[in-house]
Amino acid sequence: MTTPPVPLDTLASRLDAEDALAPLRRRFLLPQDTVYLDGNSLGPLPAAVPPVLRDVVTRQWGTDLIRSWNSNDWWEAPLRVGDAVGRLIGAAPGQTVVGDSTSVQLFNALSAAVALRSGRSLLVVDPDHFPTDRYLADAVAGLHGRLVRQVSPADLRDFLAAEGHQVAVVAYSPVDYRTGELYDMRALTGLAHRAGALVLWDLCHAAGALPVELDALGVDLAVGCGYKFLSGGPGAPAYLYAARRHQEVLRTPLTGWNGHADPFGTARGYEPAPGIARARIGTPPMLSLLAMEAALTAFDGVTMTEVRAKNLSLTGFFLRCAEELLTPLGLTPVTPADPSRRGSHVALRHPDAYALVQALAEHRVIADMRAPDLLRFGMNALYNTHGEVLTAALRLRDVVRAEGYDRSPRRRGAVT
Amino acid sequence: MTTPPVPLDTLASRLDAEDALAPLRRRFLLPQDTVYLDGNSLGPLPAAVPPVLRDVVTRQWGTDLIRSWNSNDWWEAPLRVGDAVGRLIGAAPGQTVVGDSTSVQLFNALSAAVALRSGRSLLVVDPDHFPTDRYLADAVAGLHGRLVRQVSPADLRDFLAAEGHQVAVVAYSPVDYRTGELYDMRALTGLAHRAGALVLWDLCHAAGALPVELDALGVDLAVGCGYKFLSGGPGAPAYLYAARRHQEVLRTPLTGWNGHADPFGTARGYEPAPGIARARIGTPPMLSLLAMEAALTAFDGVTMTEVRAKNLSLTGFFLRCAEELLTPLGLTPVTPADPSRRGSHVALRHPDAYALVQALAEHRVIADMRAPDLLRFGMNALYNTHGEVLTAALRLRDVVRAEGYDRSPRRRGAVT
Repeated sequence: MTTPPVPLDTLASRLDAEDALAPLRRRFLLPQDTVYLDGNSLGPLPAAVPPVLRDVVTRQWGTDLIRSWNSNDWWEAPLRVGDAVGRLIGAAPGQTVVGDSTSVQLFNALSAAVALRSGRSLLVVDPDHFPTDRYLADAVAGLHGRLVRQVSPADLRDFLAAEGHQVAVVAYSPVDYRTGELYDMRALTGLAHRAGALVLWDLCHAAGALPVELDALGVDLAVGCGYKFLSGGPGAPAYLYAARRHQEVLRTPLTGWNGHADPFGTARGYEPAPGIARARIGTPPMLSLLAMEAALTAFDGVTMTEVRAKNLSLTGFFLRCAEELLTPLGLTPVTPADPSRRGSHVALRHPDAYALVQALAEHRVIADMRAPDLLRFGMNALYNTHGEVLTAALRLRDVVRAEGYDRSPRRRGAVT
Repeated sequence: MTTPPVPLDTLASRLDAEDALAPLRRRFLLPQDTVYLDGNSLGPLPAAVPPVLRDVVTRQWGTDLIRSWNSNDWWEAPLRVGDAVGRLIGAAPGQTVVGDSTSVQLFNALSAAVALRSGRSLLVVDPDHFPTDRYLADAVAGLHGRLVRQVSPADLRDFLAAEGHQVAVVAYSPVDYRTGELYDMRALTGLAHRAGALVLWDLCHAAGALPVELDALGVDLAVGCGYKFLSGGPGAPAYLYAARRHQEVLRTPLTGWNGHADPFGTARGYEPAPGIARARIGTPPMLSLLAMEAALTAFDGVTMTEVRAKNLSLTGFFLRCAEELLTPLGLTPVTPADPSRRGSHVALRHPDAYALVQALAEHRVIADMRAPDLLRFGMNALYNTHGEVLTAALRLRDVVRAEGYDRSPRRRGAVT
């Protein structure tokens, strides 16, 4: 005797009822009647942000004025918020600094890696990396007479066996920003290290979505943005992690005065500050930085293990919905079904991805797309529900059906 | 028959009564009973900022979410706010981009200058430049095998006569951040150009304080911060100006995806966007950037000529107050009395500068100091009054007298 499959709506209700993280949704100010599945691109507004930002603007800037650099601890904010990010990515205090954009932090981190492995000629990047990672690797390689090699994570072992002795740094992302595929950070870090190379992880699509154990894995360098799963606000500052063992000799090219050993002195030359503070550059955008600090409190009292479990539940449920509702209409999941190989967004392939995402937005489901043909649905354990996931799948099904995007074999047969 | 000198308080009242810009003070939310003369370090809160920032946070981020990149024109903001800054520094639209910190922009601008003058080996900076300008020049020179020469503006003519053919770029500030001395931008720009060098101006202490005619002077590159006389907020984004004639071949090393010709494409290599957009780097801190955009409206309807005239009136009146009240107590002005050589702050020398600025703050006059012995008083035409200037001088006199910092010849004679 087989039990009949549980209907999707029953399953969604059951999963949401059992969800211990459900109360965290109140930590976000989400628009009513909208299903937001694009927090992998821009996280929504945490409820903690508006009151903090009011205080920052009105009291700290407006009343305390210049004194806030001391009296409201503005000066220490890049390191303080860095440690708050560090707690989410497995970094003990004193190894993470917040500021600037991911692109700028990549430039500093890649340059530092090249300097730490000065006898090696190659920088390895993923050919399917987010473009800015490749552009910055090209820029740093060009400045230092090094070469960039584009090697997929799947090919890294073979590549290193042949050319590993020449590799200064392997710069990868744990999650493919298009497909949502999750790579094995431990294995890839180990491969790089056994070749004597450093490893630099771009955590944009991982931080705040799944456990990242930088210290435990012995990672050398990492960067990431503040505005995706960390929900730090539009263009929230990025961060740079440098393992403590490298800090004493860490040299970054962007030698702004905030990173000087004596920032308010008038030394004739640049002398880097002790510790991770040497990776500071110029004066950080305090409104954005302090908004991000408030936003990070949405993670208070939650472990990344809990976040990961729920994210897998959400993405797994979405894949199940897709199988039943969407694949028959020609929407093909490209995200691995294996939970150990899945980040926190799911991508579906359809030739009309752009039009479908637009149509879906008109039905108050916000997702995004990546050219040419991927629809992306990001799920965040802190606020998304299984009910929303089902709603998104149902509305997508309805849009495909109603607007003639049905690519099922039957329909294709009927049209041609 | 000589008229007796007008008492300082009568003069202050008269100057304020005649001040056509006086109503602009209402554009700022200044703390009551405080005299703020540190807007050259952190401009105060413009009244336009809080409502705009509320809208940015609550509606644009909170409700419109990811769609704001299009629907609220976030994507164009660095160029739009760049043009708003451009209006204040004599730059026609399409030549100024806002984002990142001054240090980062200096790195990009100095690197671009070296590339534009690739056959020349020297970068010239002012030995009394703000430290970050020197640090970044050292960094860029080191990366490109060039050398930095520290040459005072007063010595530039002679230096260029000897070594001008080797100079790639002269990177100066029009206003000395310590003494408030104003250099002749036109003359120095002309000297550099006649030697075949480019000129890069750091406008941190000039933009928003006095007319800067980048286009008219034929300046090549400029950078500056948003948080001093522009009052854009703590750590407000910086800006980079590149004259249109250089843009087609302008190459900056920080090749983030925002500056790509096809930012949302997945090109294999970096191809710079047309125009000044190629100097964009990564995703900008939107809260800080849009706060700055609102702040700049404090300049609406005012010409920089009017601003300059009032700033000279304020600094001139402060020098007169100092002469009568402070010089006799041993506080020596180091800022030139000649208006054509004076920026928008006045510096007084006193060996107890640090303690005096602290004591003054207790009496609700906010100024700052620069090691080892300079008190700085910044004046901003948009909100400061001559009455405030007199109050500052009187309270400083009282502090010096009451707390035993009197360094007048008489007192010193009595002590030794």
